[in-house]
Amino acid sequence: MATSSSEVEEGTKFTPKFGADGLVTAVVTDAQSGDVLMVAHMNDEALAKTIESGEAWYFSRSRQKLWKKGETSGHTQRVVEMRVDCDQDAVWLKVEQKGEGACHTGRRSCFYRAVPLGKAGAATLEFRDADKKFDPAKTYK
Amino acid sequence: MATSSSEVEEGTKFTPKFGADGLVTAVVTDAQSGDVLMVAHMNDEALAKTIESGEAWYFSRSRQKLWKKGETSGHTQRVVEMRVDCDQDAVWLKVEQKGEGACHTGRRSCFYRAVPLGKAGAATLEFRDADKKFDPAKTYK
Repeated sequence: MATSSSEVEEGTKFTPKFGADGLVTAVVTDAQSGDVLMVAHMNDEALAKTIESGEAWYFSRSRQKLWKKGETSGHTQRVVEMRVDCDQDAVWLKVEQKGEGACHTGRRSCFYRAVPLGKAGAATLEFRDADKKFDPAKTYK
Repeated sequence: MATSSSEVEEGTKFTPKFGADGLVTAVVTDAQSGDVLMVAHMNDEALAKTIESGEAWYFSRSRQKLWKKGETSGHTQRVVEMRVDCDQDAVWLKVEQKGEGACHTGRRSCFYRAVPLGKAGAATLEFRDADKKFDPAKTYK
């Protein structure tokens, strides 16, 4: 049964709108600093497990499998609050990041490079907050 | 020419990884409050226009067209900083939101409902920060 646009946007029924790939986008921010830590994706099972457990689960598009954040690194995420957007195709997780970082490269956040503005053509990225907090080679051995 | 994983993750060359649909994900936060305002998508043209102008441009998946944020509502976004994530398939825009709100429903943010945690099964959403800051019927007449 189709859900009307106003029900989706103004209602209290959680009806996630999965894309053709069966996924919604998940934006993950640090509950303390407010920084965006990562962008990931969730299928219905990842969403259900996250809601039930309060720990973040995602669906890896590259590996095509469900994964619990931190299952290898130990860097799990406790969800402090989960929100859904107007058309219910994206969720926002405010998390308490356990361990040193959220990014597999060893950084706190996956967003450790800035794109300079005002210049047309090929941009040269600038590293920001890019200190490695852990050694990926040791963590993912 | 293929770009290696380490170049993409550790290099300074901006090589956005567009999906099969030609888009990257854009997470937009309020530069002052840090709140996530919206999640949108950008094609190469939206990305180029945003970088060159410092104003946010997106690509609408539903309308399949390029749009400048605020072109109808006047609620434009000045980009304070743009960052790209490790695998370069998502960007984070910290913006100065002009006007009353970013969401077409009249709210400041598109994320005005919380998904309660700890309960299995169908969730009932809870409104949060959901005051309407403008009247969509008047703004989008």
